[in-house]
Amino acid sequence: MDLRAGTWTEVRESEPELAVVPVGSTEQHGPHAPLGTDVITAEAVADAACDRLERPVVRTPAIPIGVAEEHREFPGTMWVSPETFRAYVRESVASLAHHGIDRVVLVNGHGGNVGALREVGARLTRDGTAYTVPFTWFDAIGDEAAEMGHGGPVETALLQWVAPEQVREERLEDAAAEAAATWGEWVSHTNLAYDSHEFSANGVVGDPSTASADRGEELLAAATDALIELLEAIAERECSPEA
Amino acid sequence: MDLRAGTWTEVRESEPELAVVPVGSTEQHGPHAPLGTDVITAEAVADAACDRLERPVVRTPAIPIGVAEEHREFPGTMWVSPETFRAYVRESVASLAHHGIDRVVLVNGHGGNVGALREVGARLTRDGTAYTVPFTWFDAIGDEAAEMGHGGPVETALLQWVAPEQVREERLEDAAAEAAATWGEWVSHTNLAYDSHEFSANGVVGDPSTASADRGEELLAAATDALIELLEAIAERECSPEA
Amino acid sequence: MDLRAGTWTEVRESEPELAVVPVGSTEQHGPHAPLGTDVITAEAVADAACDRLERPVVRTPAIPIGVAEEHREFPGTMWVSPETFRAYVRESVASLAHHGIDRVVLVNGHGGNVGALREVGARLTRDGTAYTVPFTWFDAIGDEAAEMGHGGPVETALLQWVAPEQVREERLEDAAAEAAATWGEWVSHTNLAYDSHEFSANGVVGDPSTASADRGEELLAAATDALIELLEAIAERECSPEA
Amino acid sequence: MDLRAGTWTEVRESEPELAVVPVGSTEQHGPHAPLGTDVITAEAVADAACDRLERPVVRTPAIPIGVAEEHREFPGTMWVSPETFRAYVRESVASLAHHGIDRVVLVNGHGGNVGALREVGARLTRDGTAYTVPFTWFDAIGDEAAEMGHGGPVETALLQWVAPEQVREERLEDAAAEAAATWGEWVSHTNLAYDSHEFSANGVVGDPSTASADRGEELLAAATDALIELLEAIAERECSPEA
Amino acid sequence: MDLRAGTWTEVRESEPELAVVPVGSTEQHGPHAPLGTDVITAEAVADAACDRLERPVVRTPAIPIGVAEEHREFPGTMWVSPETFRAYVRESVASLAHHGIDRVVLVNGHGGNVGALREVGARLTRDGTAYTVPFTWFDAIGDEAAEMGHGGPVETALLQWVAPEQVREERLEDAAAEAAATWGEWVSHTNLAYDSHEFSANGVVGDPSTASADRGEELLAAATDALIELLEAIAERECSPEA
Amino acid sequence: MDLRAGTWTEVRESEPELAVVPVGSTEQHGPHAPLGTDVITAEAVADAACDRLERPVVRTPAIPIGVAEEHREFPGTMWVSPETFRAYVRESVASLAHHGIDRVVLVNGHGGNVGALREVGARLTRDGTAYTVPFTWFDAIGDEAAEMGHGGPVETALLQWVAPEQVREERLEDAAAEAAATWGEWVSHTNLAYDSHEFSANGVVGDPSTASADRGEELLAAATDALIELLEAIAERECSPEA
Repeated sequence: MDLRAGTWTEVRESEPELAVVPVGSTEQHGPHAPLGTDVITAEAVADAACDRLERPVVRTPAIPIGVAEEHREFPGTMWVSPETFRAYVRESVASLAHHGIDRVVLVNGHGGNVGALREVGARLTRDGTAYTVPFTWFDAIGDEAAEMGHGGPVETALLQWVAPEQVREERLEDAAAEAAATWGEWVSHTNLAYDSHEFSANGVVGDPSTASADRGEELLAAATDALIELLEAIAERECSPEA
Repeated sequence: MDLRAGTWTEVRESEPELAVVPVGSTEQHGPHAPLGTDVITAEAVADAACDRLERPVVRTPAIPIGVAEEHREFPGTMWVSPETFRAYVRESVASLAHHGIDRVVLVNGHGGNVGALREVGARLTRDGTAYTVPFTWFDAIGDEAAEMGHGGPVETALLQWVAPEQVREERLEDAAAEAAATWGEWVSHTNLAYDSHEFSANGVVGDPSTASADRGEELLAAATDALIELLEAIAERECSPEA
Repeated sequence: MDLRAGTWTEVRESEPELAVVPVGSTEQHGPHAPLGTDVITAEAVADAACDRLERPVVRTPAIPIGVAEEHREFPGTMWVSPETFRAYVRESVASLAHHGIDRVVLVNGHGGNVGALREVGARLTRDGTAYTVPFTWFDAIGDEAAEMGHGGPVETALLQWVAPEQVREERLEDAAAEAAATWGEWVSHTNLAYDSHEFSANGVVGDPSTASADRGEELLAAATDALIELLEAIAERECSPEA
Repeated sequence: MDLRAGTWTEVRESEPELAVVPVGSTEQHGPHAPLGTDVITAEAVADAACDRLERPVVRTPAIPIGVAEEHREFPGTMWVSPETFRAYVRESVASLAHHGIDRVVLVNGHGGNVGALREVGARLTRDGTAYTVPFTWFDAIGDEAAEMGHGGPVETALLQWVAPEQVREERLEDAAAEAAATWGEWVSHTNLAYDSHEFSANGVVGDPSTASADRGEELLAAATDALIELLEAIAERECSPEA
Repeated sequence: MDLRAGTWTEVRESEPELAVVPVGSTEQHGPHAPLGTDVITAEAVADAACDRLERPVVRTPAIPIGVAEEHREFPGTMWVSPETFRAYVRESVASLAHHGIDRVVLVNGHGGNVGALREVGARLTRDGTAYTVPFTWFDAIGDEAAEMGHGGPVETALLQWVAPEQVREERLEDAAAEAAATWGEWVSHTNLAYDSHEFSANGVVGDPSTASADRGEELLAAATDALIELLEAIAERECSPEA
Repeated sequence: MDLRAGTWTEVRESEPELAVVPVGSTEQHGPHAPLGTDVITAEAVADAACDRLERPVVRTPAIPIGVAEEHREFPGTMWVSPETFRAYVRESVASLAHHGIDRVVLVNGHGGNVGALREVGARLTRDGTAYTVPFTWFDAIGDEAAEMGHGGPVETALLQWVAPEQVREERLEDAAAEAAATWGEWVSHTNLAYDSHEFSANGVVGDPSTASADRGEELLAAATDALIELLEAIAERECSPEA
């Protein structure tokens, strides 16, 4: 059930124990992809999985602003501090648990959120509020994950499939031309840079001009399959959260 | 510009100083209206005003979960603490101000957020981060405001106009039958109740069966006119935020 | 019992379940009324009610500094942040509850405290610490409330009755001459101003020259009657705070 | 100037740089002395010094509830956490500094506040907000300090002089009979006890039956002299708070 | 310079700009390795690099307790929350920066600290306090990193070289017998487990019986080389921390 | 047991209920004594007592950085805020209590930590986490305590005994020549100074040239005896922490 569209009486009737919470970010994704990329992609994967899952599951609204100060030099990027992000996610999940919806997957679309979500999941799980696990879709697509970048071929392809009107095709070449090859600036296996403008002139990492809607379709299928498998495992897992 | 759909290069080019941030809540609205009512209505008013405004303005994603613990006994209601809500809104606005977008209207759709938003606006304005003013659409519709209730005739009418598929018309009579007449439980001009289930069996206050899409159209027009007038005033106001 | 004047053995013997906590502010009230106005008036109402109430009740010391940054441009105004104010009130009430005094009315004399006190009351009530309700005396005086202003006819009249030596009668005309007619600066039902100096040259709102001690006597009676009625209701209310 | 009784225009005219903030506690003081003892005594010393000081000085309202959880087993005792106490004092002082009143003495009447006030004073001084120094009156009375106790001969004597109606003379013998000789329970110069009920049956430490109003008069004189000398030193001290 | 052994006058004379802060954890490392493993190894790498570096550098005391709640089911494991850990590290570094030592490498020996240290480094760097970079020694040893585990061959080998008396050689076979092969419990590239006891009976991951002092010597050399290269890069990097 | 050197299995077998946590500071101790003085001395006392105690006891790693902003003008001094220090100590102790080690002595070597540790101990004890008592070694040595100073004869003597290589004997005369006689700058029994550079040119208080290793041996014996007596009392004390 899409929680935004449901009524409280309908939630009561469906007796869900499982929730999917999309978590994104509103941040630069180069000159060719929208600031909402991480929300759009997280929602797409979450919705595809919920549609196919054969269990009662609640799909909450996406949390749209995340840990993205690293992109602050690019206009329009929004962010909150990691502390505030963790609190917002944690309390949102706790409110679901108040209704007995205490197995929760955080479907994440932004690399900068990963550490914070894992920390939140641990806390909610350990204190017995809800068994909460973050799932970052682009880490669950097998070998393709290596090409993720930022506004690169993976994200761009997924957008081309789920929201093609959002991709500025005419700027893909330029986006690629100024893109960085890899994320960060490395010495001794250590990243010397904290912000994306330090190593990418236009905010892009990877070559988005190699993306295609077909690849996007495959990526969505892979991520969706993975999420469904995870949701099944979480629903079946023997767990007393307090233990 | 819808920030979710724009790129960072487009934001840079439009040089906006003004932002509209919809703020809602995901909470029970009776058996006939969706949990997302306060987001849907806030977005509708925000979008209508931005569409007509003749100035560069950024419309951010809606903040979907607010201060709504008062509805916690109704399944599906989500909330965060006032502290966390204030931090999330404040830092989100501060990130806009980092880009020079430092005149901000928080377009609010939920009564429970009003005090917290006013507190946030004061802090952001006084510390010079951004001149930030909350606007609660149902307080800006003149005499109609008196009939607001909760899931009552005003909200239901607006939904019937902007998202008719979201209103369960067949349940309006039942919704009205169990609704409370007024919000709260009053002695000596003081509300003895903190939570809606203390005074409303189904979470509704006011009679939604008197709503109509025509009335919704008028309400949207009234709220939109008010918001546009406010945006003009804020854009023109002589203010050095630090003063 | 005035807690400041009682001993712990006397508190033990009276076995109170009910407390009245006056909450004020130390802030400008124009050229004619003292910075302590909100404490003096809150204490006056609290004491009058406790004197007449036929139940064991504890009257604590007044909390003298509140949420008043809005008057910061007028010398002598003191304030704390809303966060700190809430914590101070909340923990003070929790210490009463430790002794079984777990039905508490916060008798408030300052408009700027209203939102914060309601938030505190909700939290203390919901977490089962104490059933706590704020009562703002000038909201409980019926139609007179509309004339409240700031340092205006209502507050000045009450001072003239309970602390006449505190009113600079010779400055009432000047106070009125520079006063604002209403609180704030409004566009689209929205207040564009956060601070009182933005709309009032001398910090006054309303015309204090129309005040009189006779009116003050009536106001005190009205507020006291309301508070007693509220205290009775709270003492009798069936409530398990944890529910 | 008593800030509670002054107007903002009078504060402006007197151009004070110096403030005295009484800080007390509302807590058990045995069967013979009132819960407000620490406020009453701090105010008495503060007022006596301000009356005699030949400089513009602002005397603020007393902060009435402090760090007193150690007395929590005695009914009527109120307290806040050290964190909240520090924040309340710190922000109150900062609001004075906003008006240029940036040399502040915290006149303290409660032993449990001492550490917290020193921490607050350091922070306000080091960050350049205000040069702030706590003064605990019973530490400034020379050899008499050794007899302080709690509700013992020193405090009782001062009360007998400044608020004789507050001392239950008829209970002094009983108070003495059950009193502890010293504060705490010591092994290896270390106090094993955190709370007063662990070592005193009635909350008293020291023998209050040896107190007298004459001694109280001398104590007040000694404390007042000390405070005046301190205020002179602070007013004259060469200090740039930011340094 | 070992800061613990230096005097303030010696620090002044050496005019260091660079600091190395070892960060460890006190937590279970199986039946064969000590709870202090992560401190011992971080200190060993830090000291080896500082000894060889030809620049003035300060080596601070190790921070001995970290983010290790994941091992809480194994007796003796100590931990603090991520929030507190971040604050302790951040303020410690800020105190160095107060003296002009504002290029700092956090030499880390514990996987559970990695995310928190990166967050701290970003904050200190972005707010201009100090350019601060975490270096986790076992991520900087090339292909060997893949065998890290927990109390596994890599850590055990390093201990055998730098602190051979700390390794219980007689328990290595048992340690290996009950060890987990990999960290966590994975479905869809997502770890379902938060705590080590969920997947390892004795807290070990990887086979420590394959470790040797010779390998430890090589590991120390590799990590030290990497750290020296990093320190040189950080010392030479053109950076205005505030930018 | 030295926790750093033990394994989790060894902790399990020894079933300790008692812990000793050394707490120090890394801060200036004049030109003759190392920045690590307060850690070295706290560890020395803690180790001597644990060696002789005939009970299972855990000796944790020392907490090396404390509340020492007062020495911030002397290069190399490190510190954290009192808030962060309290949190770090509190949570470290709570992690011990998780394993049933719930009687804890904080063996402290730094005057600036005293108030903060007492506050932490009270909180842990009152909330039932662990019965926690701070022990400051130089307050437990009888009349010698009066000569403590800072980097003065007491600390220097202890160093000469336990870590003679750390004392720069050749600078003792200079250290004495510029030392302050007493800590602070006093008026009316009130310290006007917050920082040590305000009253000591080289950071020393007291005359270290009178110290000797013999005296250090006596001091260590006295402090150790006191700590052992305290540990016995704490182990035997009838206490239900929650009471």
